[in-house]
Amino acid sequence: MVEVTNEQLLEQARIAWSRAYAKYSKYKVGAAILTKDGKIILGCNIENASYGGTICAERSAICSAISQGYRDFEAIAVVVDAGHVASPCGICRQFLVEFGNYKVILGTVKTNDVNVTSTYDLLPYAFTPKNLEEFD
Amino acid sequence: MVEVTNEQLLEQARIAWSRAYAKYSKYKVGAAILTKDGKIILGCNIENASYGGTICAERSAICSAISQGYRDFEAIAVVVDAGHVASPCGICRQFLVEFGNYKVILGTVKTNDVNVTSTYDLLPYAFTPKNLEEFD
Amino acid sequence: MVEVTNEQLLEQARIAWSRAYAKYSKYKVGAAILTKDGKIILGCNIENASYGGTICAERSAICSAISQGYRDFEAIAVVVDAGHVASPCGICRQFLVEFGNYKVILGTVKTNDVNVTSTYDLLPYAFTPKNLEEFD
Amino acid sequence: MVEVTNEQLLEQARIAWSRAYAKYSKYKVGAAILTKDGKIILGCNIENASYGGTICAERSAICSAISQGYRDFEAIAVVVDAGHVASPCGICRQFLVEFGNYKVILGTVKTNDVNVTSTYDLLPYAFTPKNLEEFD
Ligand SMILES: [Zn+2]
Ligand SMILES: [Zn+2]
Ligand SMILES: [Zn+2]
Ligand SMILES: [Zn+2]
Repeated sequence: MVEVTNEQLLEQARIAWSRAYAKYSKYKVGAAILTKDGKIILGCNIENASYGGTICAERSAICSAISQGYRDFEAIAVVVDAGHVASPCGICRQFLVEFGNYKVILGTVKTNDVNVTSTYDLLPYAFTPKNLEEFD
Repeated sequence: MVEVTNEQLLEQARIAWSRAYAKYSKYKVGAAILTKDGKIILGCNIENASYGGTICAERSAICSAISQGYRDFEAIAVVVDAGHVASPCGICRQFLVEFGNYKVILGTVKTNDVNVTSTYDLLPYAFTPKNLEEFD
Repeated sequence: MVEVTNEQLLEQARIAWSRAYAKYSKYKVGAAILTKDGKIILGCNIENASYGGTICAERSAICSAISQGYRDFEAIAVVVDAGHVASPCGICRQFLVEFGNYKVILGTVKTNDVNVTSTYDLLPYAFTPKNLEEFD
Repeated sequence: MVEVTNEQLLEQARIAWSRAYAKYSKYKVGAAILTKDGKIILGCNIENASYGGTICAERSAICSAISQGYRDFEAIAVVVDAGHVASPCGICRQFLVEFGNYKVILGTVKTNDVNVTSTYDLLPYAFTPKNLEEFD
């Protein structure tokens, strides 16, 4: 399988970014998730008149990937249009970690800034499927 | 453009259904959205250990469609694995209506039951972008 | 038990309105829910930097009521600061209907406009606990 | 102002726990938040037939507190009915951190286990109001 570099994944996230529906915040975000099979799937944020209905780019990408039949991920790249990178919100961290530990690559639309972290590092002591299993 | 029948769209939704990640409720749901361009995009429900993080099939399909660059929809088909059709939850109705009025086709995985309604009929007096615009 | 009028409940919702944390939309909303025991409990909208984390006034009021031990409701009043009343979003309709059918009184902060409807009317063919029970 | 101990706040969370509406997961959670003024406000989890509508105990407590006019918090205690403590989900961490850094006390209903952490420690590199401000 051909290696996908961080920069290549960020480049795909920038394409997703251009499709964001950020009608209310104007804060567009793009994501690209790399499956274990080497497939890249895009996601952008989708806002709603009722703000609570908003779905971020990271979750959009996962939705799209799962709906296409993928569940094992290698990495997700996320780009924002700001002076420097931003970390995923807690809602997305919760959603990402449901599918295990994988690389999270943070970038921007106009700079070459890159931060690399992981789903586990972003949600220490995560509340995961295990918590509910124990409880059963 | 070739016409897509309700049954054809339901058939695609059944494919999406098979990919649902319904680890907690075991209640799998599949959706297939038809864009104005005639493109069909799938979505399935994706649950989370923190139940509030769950995203339904309808929203998954929209996320996937928007992330691929589509915003104008003709119809969405939704199937459940139950004795009869079920309507979208309120969260999804809010999410669907953000993108206008289009057909909603409800079916099941194992019966030929079909109910046809629309995003506007499902959310009378909807809270839409207009409410916030007026307010500005 | 002393009768609570629509106007009295709206008046309480206006107090809740003044407490709204609407940092991002600036769209403040207040709610007041009347329990079957005659207790009135307030709720306001609470937004979040991650828009999807936002909780509307109606849901806030229910959270507060349930957390105080109440589950049976008579009516909920909701006020917005706009020229005319606005209906609850689909997310809130879903949340309200989980606790049955009760009156929904819509008003504003500065006018005497009032619309009266109900949780069932706002979510026709609702997806309720029954859907999941059937499925078990 | 009289000091409220961790154990006293956990005791209040246990009262909230008994009011949880955990119809689907059966996983009841209780929370008690202590305001800077020394007021204690309760919250329990409230599930929904549409799982994505679920609101956790921590968010319930904040909703209740803000709706009563409080915005400055000292600590929040959270209890679960399991053999050991569980951390808040990512959605709640995002919601809690909107209101700054304060103590998070984790306990259970039947043991004396206690873990103490903070909203900032639970969400490293948080996405906060600052991210959106910079962007403006
Ligand atoms: Zn997010
Ligand atoms: Zn739904
Ligand atoms: Zn709402
Ligand atoms: Zn939570």
